[in-house]
Amino acid sequence: MTRPNSTPDIGRLLVSCPDQPGIIAAVSRFLYEHGANIIESDQYSTDPEGGAFFLRTVFHRAGLSAMRLDLERRFAAEVGMPFGMDWSFTAAGVPKRAAIMVSRYDHCLLDLLWRARRDELDLDVGLVISNHADLAEAVRAFGVTYVHIPVTADTKQEAERRQLELLTGNFDLVVMARYMQILSAAFLAAVAVPVINIHHSFLPAFAGAAPHERAHERGVKLVGATAHYATEDLDQGPIIEQDVVRVTHRLSAAELERRGADVERTVLARAVQWHCEDRVVRDGARTVVF
Amino acid sequence: MTRPNSTPDIGRLLVSCPDQPGIIAAVSRFLYEHGANIIESDQYSTDPEGGAFFLRTVFHRAGLSAMRLDLERRFAAEVGMPFGMDWSFTAAGVPKRAAIMVSRYDHCLLDLLWRARRDELDLDVGLVISNHADLAEAVRAFGVTYVHIPVTADTKQEAERRQLELLTGNFDLVVMARYMQILSAAFLAAVAVPVINIHHSFLPAFAGAAPHERAHERGVKLVGATAHYATEDLDQGPIIEQDVVRVTHRLSAAELERRGADVERTVLARAVQWHCEDRVVRDGARTVVF
Amino acid sequence: MTRPNSTPDIGRLLVSCPDQPGIIAAVSRFLYEHGANIIESDQYSTDPEGGAFFLRTVFHRAGLSAMRLDLERRFAAEVGMPFGMDWSFTAAGVPKRAAIMVSRYDHCLLDLLWRARRDELDLDVGLVISNHADLAEAVRAFGVTYVHIPVTADTKQEAERRQLELLTGNFDLVVMARYMQILSAAFLAAVAVPVINIHHSFLPAFAGAAPHERAHERGVKLVGATAHYATEDLDQGPIIEQDVVRVTHRLSAAELERRGADVERTVLARAVQWHCEDRVVRDGARTVVF
Amino acid sequence: MTRPNSTPDIGRLLVSCPDQPGIIAAVSRFLYEHGANIIESDQYSTDPEGGAFFLRTVFHRAGLSAMRLDLERRFAAEVGMPFGMDWSFTAAGVPKRAAIMVSRYDHCLLDLLWRARRDELDLDVGLVISNHADLAEAVRAFGVTYVHIPVTADTKQEAERRQLELLTGNFDLVVMARYMQILSAAFLAAVAVPVINIHHSFLPAFAGAAPHERAHERGVKLVGATAHYATEDLDQGPIIEQDVVRVTHRLSAAELERRGADVERTVLARAVQWHCEDRVVRDGARTVVF
Repeated sequence: MTRPNSTPDIGRLLVSCPDQPGIIAAVSRFLYEHGANIIESDQYSTDPEGGAFFLRTVFHRAGLSAMRLDLERRFAAEVGMPFGMDWSFTAAGVPKRAAIMVSRYDHCLLDLLWRARRDELDLDVGLVISNHADLAEAVRAFGVTYVHIPVTADTKQEAERRQLELLTGNFDLVVMARYMQILSAAFLAAVAVPVINIHHSFLPAFAGAAPHERAHERGVKLVGATAHYATEDLDQGPIIEQDVVRVTHRLSAAELERRGADVERTVLARAVQWHCEDRVVRDGARTVVF
Repeated sequence: MTRPNSTPDIGRLLVSCPDQPGIIAAVSRFLYEHGANIIESDQYSTDPEGGAFFLRTVFHRAGLSAMRLDLERRFAAEVGMPFGMDWSFTAAGVPKRAAIMVSRYDHCLLDLLWRARRDELDLDVGLVISNHADLAEAVRAFGVTYVHIPVTADTKQEAERRQLELLTGNFDLVVMARYMQILSAAFLAAVAVPVINIHHSFLPAFAGAAPHERAHERGVKLVGATAHYATEDLDQGPIIEQDVVRVTHRLSAAELERRGADVERTVLARAVQWHCEDRVVRDGARTVVF
Repeated sequence: MTRPNSTPDIGRLLVSCPDQPGIIAAVSRFLYEHGANIIESDQYSTDPEGGAFFLRTVFHRAGLSAMRLDLERRFAAEVGMPFGMDWSFTAAGVPKRAAIMVSRYDHCLLDLLWRARRDELDLDVGLVISNHADLAEAVRAFGVTYVHIPVTADTKQEAERRQLELLTGNFDLVVMARYMQILSAAFLAAVAVPVINIHHSFLPAFAGAAPHERAHERGVKLVGATAHYATEDLDQGPIIEQDVVRVTHRLSAAELERRGADVERTVLARAVQWHCEDRVVRDGARTVVF
Repeated sequence: MTRPNSTPDIGRLLVSCPDQPGIIAAVSRFLYEHGANIIESDQYSTDPEGGAFFLRTVFHRAGLSAMRLDLERRFAAEVGMPFGMDWSFTAAGVPKRAAIMVSRYDHCLLDLLWRARRDELDLDVGLVISNHADLAEAVRAFGVTYVHIPVTADTKQEAERRQLELLTGNFDLVVMARYMQILSAAFLAAVAVPVINIHHSFLPAFAGAAPHERAHERGVKLVGATAHYATEDLDQGPIIEQDVVRVTHRLSAAELERRGADVERTVLARAVQWHCEDRVVRDGARTVVF
């Protein structure tokens, strides 16, 4: 199976700006005049009157990589500036470079490594960081570097410093694939790339620790998982994807956890894939998923 | 379509007691010796060592209604007493008599009335009570009595008194089909039958008021509904059934509410049906749904 | 709840044509130059090289209804003709006029009538035609005309003639809400508007008669429903929407049918709603659902 | 995570026989009198009048393994014989020994190996047989033997002979985890243990080859997978589990296949797990799944 849309001639344009008439006309005229053919285009406005406008456009342009800088310069001047846009071009053929952080549970980690290997994800996993040594062998079997950085209450600051040494400037994305430590606000600011976390409950239900124990006590009939961007407010980051699975009174908290694990890996894989395809745009506390 | 299991010869036996060896042997021997053939049987134990045991058995016995009292007397002496059981026999052919309480939203109410009319529910709806007059005509078109009892902060106590006059002793079940008033603990104690409520969120997420507005702000990707037994702790009652539906960033809070409405009526109908089939047993803050 | 997008200033433009560069630029420039602000836009191409291109655009233009004819004339000349387009403008505020055909099962019919009454569907149901008299009262309670046209093998041709007298020119849409007669190719040609049918199985599984009996025999673990445009090839028309529900070995064929009925009404309601919002475009034997 | 119900004192009893009064009373009395405490019990009758009766009972009996043969002998005499039962006792703590057959797709295979390694399945995978060499390394990384037996039209009979040499008498179960060769009726008879196959469509839709191409042409809105016992009638064996996932017109046949792959591995894992827990009983062309 080959990576979809992987030719070097396919680009993506992401735009956000205050909503106003003429945005789509200006963008599509610009692309047309520069020889680009729109393959896919999606837009969203929080409110046509004074709201925020979001656009994702995928286009084909022969010889794109050679003209990329020139295209960006012209877009900035002709469209980006006049409309007050935040915008970015990305090359669809270039996978995101990612580091994964993990503790002991392997289900999300292995699912990502396995999907990346079979080119289901536009993701190059270059590094796995763990506060435990358990998964070293499983990760290295995929040809991926595994770095064990233990974390205790005393060494947390030092551990984050070492993590940042490895991460800063080297990756486009960090994925917390059941990494059971809380990242500090300072870490999140310094890492300077999006961090995707998987939470083992259907947020905002059962935020915090031990969600399956609490779900069991409450007697819910569905358990779920939530992939979100990590922010300094724990479990409060913008939600990218969620899903649930049915459960019954017969299942213990441990069995709820096991059922939940299947949802976690699916939800995280979808969230990572959409992020890698530049489908996810942050809109304050929410996300737009094109 | 005929009501399933509706012959007068089919009975159900519900049992709960401390778990201990020999319960099933004793119950099944009793039924066999009294000429009853077990059609369906389901059991659950919270813990084989010192836990609570729950049993639901459906059986066929020719001439059941004539021998019912005798059967109960013997069961009490031979099985119920020795094992310290809470138990009850019900006749599968006799639908539960229900009153429905509703405010202005009609979707749950009409769904229940319509399903009852086509004999999809083992339910005889004898009365609808509303704090508004809006739905009188729609309800009376089903041949069901509609009583309008307005409620204000000042008249709430008096209103509950009038409601209890209509309800007490007349019904086996009260269903709150989007009744937007909080019932007092005194009311719930006095009505003395189970009260099923439908909450318009996936509890415990978004308990309380305006769940769809808060779901919209939080940017969740699924909205849901929860049917539970009403208790004096609002939105904390034992959950009978829940379900969810996918939503996207494109939907406004009002549209989330509309999507949620479809889930509400399905979830409430299932919960009521299972209750009417004596499938739901309370286990503290949780339910066992056989 | 108010009908969404119901102001007279909101229009929709549907386009299909051979894919080629510049389509979106031309359409969006045209709309911009004529004072229209794009609210929503969706496109699909079966193949950027020589495939078919489909576009649905929703826009706001103050005073739209007064300028509609002029807009259409100019669009034809400036955009439609040069690109070889099939295109149409529709007014979002004008609900589709629909007739419903039904036999004896009421679940799909009542669901549509009820959703239309609470303005959940952009649908004005003006007529119900049935080959049975059973549902006359229920339909007339909604203030909708009910015409009973019996059909036998001998009278089928005459019955279709009478149906066409009522339908032709009066409606934008015909919905077969469990109408258990096969419509002739001549009828479908003469009625000259889209006909949506609901089939009580997950097509292409169990096409034809008695799907639940056959699903029971085959022991499937899911049953479903399919809404599709009616064509002269029975059960072969382009699929608009499908869904399924889980079932177990415990359910009889009759119970499968009952579970399936809940799926049918949901699936049909979605298909009708999407059609009324001009979201569904036929692409040969398939549909594009924007 | 520990294997559930893994103590050597837990047994399962499976029974099938003509339905008749007193079965449950006899079985539960037998277990009680032999010191066994019923933990879980499930039953099903195709028809209380002359139908087939199925029972699965899980029980705890201290010292079970030592008394197993004696228990079986007595059960045969006291219960099995009088009621004309097919019956079997199994030890819950003993995982099924399984061989997996696979071609080139790894998703189902790796999912099973990974779940078995983390003790999510009561399964000991002792052997993987493939008609290709591709997956040897991935399998051996799990410490599982991989045997490459090429198959061509000419060598098929010889290949099956070699497969049977490896399989016969050594395994309780064979799983075809996307093994793309048809097994002969002779092979299925000779292997003499259940064979579970995963089909990459929602049977009976798209039986046979290339289901995703045909699903794409037909424009279905859901694709699925089916786990079933292999029989000599291809794709006709008793269905154990099925599931589906939503798709849209935007997905190519290759993308449908990729979405389907996630369903396949989940469906196959569930079917294998249920089989290993002795939950699945064949009832002619159907299955009972307790």
